[in-house]
Amino acid sequence: MITTPTAVAKLSAALGDGSAATLAASALVEADVLGLPRFGIAMLDEWSADAAPLPAAGEPQAISWRDCSACFAPLAVASATLDLEAAARQFGLAAVFLRGIRGVGRLAPFVRHLADAGLVGLAGAEGPPFVAPHGGTKAVIGTNPLAIAMGRGGGRIVIDVASSSATMADIRNARATGQPLPAGIALDAKGRPTSIAAEVAALLPRGGQVGSLLGLVVELIAGVAGGGRGDPKGRGVVLLAFDPAAAGETIDWQGKLAGLKSDWTTGGGHWPRGGGLPTEATLDPDFARRLDAHLDRMTSRGNR
Amino acid sequence: MITTPTAVAKLSAALGDGSAATLAASALVEADVLGLPRFGIAMLDEWSADAAPLPAAGEPQAISWRDCSACFAPLAVASATLDLEAAARQFGLAAVFLRGIRGVGRLAPFVRHLADAGLVGLAGAEGPPFVAPHGGTKAVIGTNPLAIAMGRGGGRIVIDVASSSATMADIRNARATGQPLPAGIALDAKGRPTSIAAEVAALLPRGGQVGSLLGLVVELIAGVAGGGRGDPKGRGVVLLAFDPAAAGETIDWQGKLAGLKSDWTTGGGHWPRGGGLPTEATLDPDFARRLDAHLDRMTSRGNR
Repeated sequence: MITTPTAVAKLSAALGDGSAATLAASALVEADVLGLPRFGIAMLDEWSADAAPLPAAGEPQAISWRDCSACFAPLAVASATLDLEAAARQFGLAAVFLRGIRGVGRLAPFVRHLADAGLVGLAGAEGPPFVAPHGGTKAVIGTNPLAIAMGRGGGRIVIDVASSSATMADIRNARATGQPLPAGIALDAKGRPTSIAAEVAALLPRGGQVGSLLGLVVELIAGVAGGGRGDPKGRGVVLLAFDPAAAGETIDWQGKLAGLKSDWTTGGGHWPRGGGLPTEATLDPDFARRLDAHLDRMTSRGNR
Repeated sequence: MITTPTAVAKLSAALGDGSAATLAASALVEADVLGLPRFGIAMLDEWSADAAPLPAAGEPQAISWRDCSACFAPLAVASATLDLEAAARQFGLAAVFLRGIRGVGRLAPFVRHLADAGLVGLAGAEGPPFVAPHGGTKAVIGTNPLAIAMGRGGGRIVIDVASSSATMADIRNARATGQPLPAGIALDAKGRPTSIAAEVAALLPRGGQVGSLLGLVVELIAGVAGGGRGDPKGRGVVLLAFDPAAAGETIDWQGKLAGLKSDWTTGGGHWPRGGGLPTEATLDPDFARRLDAHLDRMTSRGNR
């Protein structure tokens, strides 16, 4: 058993400490707390003592592009998030495009950090082709998640939505267990509908045309404008933040957010909060053992 | 019969000439060409000689908010688009939030203008509650379209997607003809599914949860951060543009866009082009008559 603050502190120290290390460590530990171990400390498999140092922030820029293929990805995303926070505060609005990101993990912790800073945070990620266009027969884009966060405390919203009808993990699990897939989520190599996980060559977009177009929007920004599409070294990620306080006193965005939450939940909608890291949570002995194994490897290789 | 360039030139002159008037006139005429008369010159019903002058552009700003409730909406959106173009070129990235927009019309012509300028253009709009949350029973948000355009010529993409399963015009038409609605698109005042247009109190989101979340993303930006939500004077609109050339030579976004188009269409997908204004198009005598009636009213009231 290990508490989450202890796990985050130990991992942050192994990642070199500082704000970016703490944010990256929190994001990984949180995924394990939420029962998404593939996006958790398992991503430390990609960590290498030879990883390039993070780009020095320098002067904040309203828009910038970074090749992160030589960096440990969660640390690169965390570092870009912190630089973006400073840039959005200075310019009112800023964006950063990352490419060569090996494993993205969850976007929610990074946009939530921006919301904690009083900003509106948006993020999107593209990846290798795994999802077919609506009405199509072949995989062309990734599962292309889009995330947004704004507000603080109980009224905060964190949306993190993928544009595919299933995840690659769902398919992998079904392959392992031999369970049939639900109808209408996947195609085989000939573009025919299939419910056999071993035959899946493409996923279908979530919700038909609207999910397909949402995936395409993310691909255009994170993949095309960001320059990441087709890069064998990793994925494209876009982070964007803006400061609603730049409007001055003319808009009451906090009041409007509270009103929208009330209307949405009264109208029967689910107000998404995108996970989070409960401070009281403890992680099981298996997690503690896995974390120690990673920390041992990081410390010994780091001190070579 | 009237050709589209003549129609645009006449309407642009009546709107005061200049780039914003031409862009607004093109957007309205285009909607009539595309068979969407409700978003066409019918929007001139809202034109008034008493409309406030457009805000003077002044120094470009990376992020700004404008109350447009006293302006003729298509002209205000066009003017904001042109100012945004200048700001995105200067800062690399810029956004403008409009509120009090009475009639938005189609977003595609404005983002397409930004794409013509070599930028990536995005737009979203919120409006009075007409769409229920996924799983919900009451209308909370509008049909909340999201649009993006990038590229030029044959390779260009223009996506303009609403987050509802139908439009208010569809419901109005079904009410007029007495036709039943398709199943699963609308709710009555008690939150029960209905196929009777006269009983519709809320539309359902397009594609279920993914369309619902897309609508909520647009509401958060255009309605909450933009300050437009709940404003009885009109809708909230957000326009955002960035300049991929600001990346320098490190990304080949034009090449990646062409590659994505090829992959998408080869994979069986539809590459959306968001309408457009064919220069050779002619409009029918009814359009010519309606345009003249509007121009007469605008000229006489303008000269009062």
